[in-house]
Amino acid sequence: MPADAQDLRWLEAAARLAARGVPLSLPNPAVGAILVKEGRVVGRGWTQAGGRPHAEAVALAQAGAAARGATLYVTLEPCAHASARGPACADLTAAAGLARVVVGCADPDPRTAGAGLARLRESGTPADLANCPACAASLAGYLVRARHDRPHVTLKLALSLDGCIALASGESQWITSAPARAHTHAMRARADAILVGGGTFRADHPRLDVRLPGLEARSPERWLLTRGAAPQGWTALSDPQAIHDHPETQYLFVEGGAQAAAAFLTADLVDRLLVYRAPILIGGGKPGVADLGLASLAQAHHRWTLADRRPLGSDCLEVYERHRPT
Amino acid sequence: MPADAQDLRWLEAAARLAARGVPLSLPNPAVGAILVKEGRVVGRGWTQAGGRPHAEAVALAQAGAAARGATLYVTLEPCAHASARGPACADLTAAAGLARVVVGCADPDPRTAGAGLARLRESGTPADLANCPACAASLAGYLVRARHDRPHVTLKLALSLDGCIALASGESQWITSAPARAHTHAMRARADAILVGGGTFRADHPRLDVRLPGLEARSPERWLLTRGAAPQGWTALSDPQAIHDHPETQYLFVEGGAQAAAAFLTADLVDRLLVYRAPILIGGGKPGVADLGLASLAQAHHRWTLADRRPLGSDCLEVYERHRPT
Repeated sequence: MPADAQDLRWLEAAARLAARGVPLSLPNPAVGAILVKEGRVVGRGWTQAGGRPHAEAVALAQAGAAARGATLYVTLEPCAHASARGPACADLTAAAGLARVVVGCADPDPRTAGAGLARLRESGTPADLANCPACAASLAGYLVRARHDRPHVTLKLALSLDGCIALASGESQWITSAPARAHTHAMRARADAILVGGGTFRADHPRLDVRLPGLEARSPERWLLTRGAAPQGWTALSDPQAIHDHPETQYLFVEGGAQAAAAFLTADLVDRLLVYRAPILIGGGKPGVADLGLASLAQAHHRWTLADRRPLGSDCLEVYERHRPT
Repeated sequence: MPADAQDLRWLEAAARLAARGVPLSLPNPAVGAILVKEGRVVGRGWTQAGGRPHAEAVALAQAGAAARGATLYVTLEPCAHASARGPACADLTAAAGLARVVVGCADPDPRTAGAGLARLRESGTPADLANCPACAASLAGYLVRARHDRPHVTLKLALSLDGCIALASGESQWITSAPARAHTHAMRARADAILVGGGTFRADHPRLDVRLPGLEARSPERWLLTRGAAPQGWTALSDPQAIHDHPETQYLFVEGGAQAAAAFLTADLVDRLLVYRAPILIGGGKPGVADLGLASLAQAHHRWTLADRRPLGSDCLEVYERHRPT
């Protein structure tokens, strides 16, 4: 039977579990799984640090005998390829005596790519593909990697109402409030790498670490957009396209400044915008985005869709997704 | 008895009626009134075009004999001074045999200023002052006039996410969508005067009229911020402080550009910001606000409070009120 509204709610819950694996699941995608029997959760799992065990294996182990007759909700198609690190989830799942499997996203990995669903159905386990947007969002880094051979890129902008990141004098601490800055640190903790431009590096000497209690160890790689050499502890990228040269990276967080933002936007390599907006006016300050070389306003429209908005202290976070017609 | 939550809801309804009188009630404040008896509305009124009849008189005339024993909710203290144009509302109201009068705001006019409430109580009609924020907001033009001897000033900013009002080339049509621009026209219709700066006048030759069906006649006075002479049909203001020289004006709508916005902001003469935000990035475009001469970021904070936010097509309108400690 096709997935219904209740199925989508379970898949959304599985997507929230999956978020716990970002970014520690590398090199594997961060997957979430929930086993439901007679309306009750009997097992849940998410891809563990280092990529194993997979979410399905964790949920099935937790459920034990209760898995028999349950429905498995899983954000990504179970893998069809065994490896030295563990069995194929499609086989593991097919052997569990499940009543049904509902999959949020098809796996673009050519080793699976429909073979996981087929394996389940051949074994007699009904399996449905739901194309769940929340699941796709939770797998953004993996899906962009598979489709475009590069990491998913988030650009952060912390702006005044009039789009400034500093006074004309350069004073920039702080535009946004402490809750907004703490949220930025939480976003850093979900990235594999953080990038700044050369100007920001020289002006701020940013640490780009995660200064949140309990998450200090989560500090991502530090990348610098520069034509020069990288300082110690940093990786140099001479151009935004160089993100294609880092096959292990799923999530890149671009923190600025205006030139780096413009370079990534001009290359159309930004998938998500985080705009932290402070309720202040600066007037004649330093703009947050440098020249994008637009020939007309029409080029600016129909690129960004508001995906989320929330208050953060006195500020507001707005999340925009790049609208890419498929 | 003091005003309770239900009283405030009736006052908020009266404030919504009052909005119908903006700006046609000039030279009088735009007041709203509702008569309630046994939980039912028996009369309503708002200040009519030209300022007469007053809201209370309209509501009492509508109710007729049903006014006896009703409660009058009125956004502003009934006037205590008779004029050649009509009786004092306090006398009219005191003679109506009302059970009670609930007033949203005290009238700062020295001819009333508590005398309206006193007149009612002397007549044996219980009268309470509720200090209702919605009523104060609906009377913003009148209250700012009384307190600061100038009109209430709204600054409109139609901005990209990065705070631009045009490409570097000057192309500015359009940043925002048709619904946002229609909303701007509705806001114009509520103003007594609209102001632009000299640069915007020369660049755009704006008509500043109200291009909405049925509201074409509502086009406000056109003011130009310029050290030079005013073109025909326009009034010249040499400086933002010159708004003090127009005693009849309650609501001024400042439409730009960046220099005019900065001039009013630097003079601290903006009471409300309307930010129409389009989901586009321009990068290196023309900023919406010119230099404000801030010496530090601390000067920028704690000035603006978000009062309202609503989607307008693909854009978002945010309304900020100037936070003025009283």
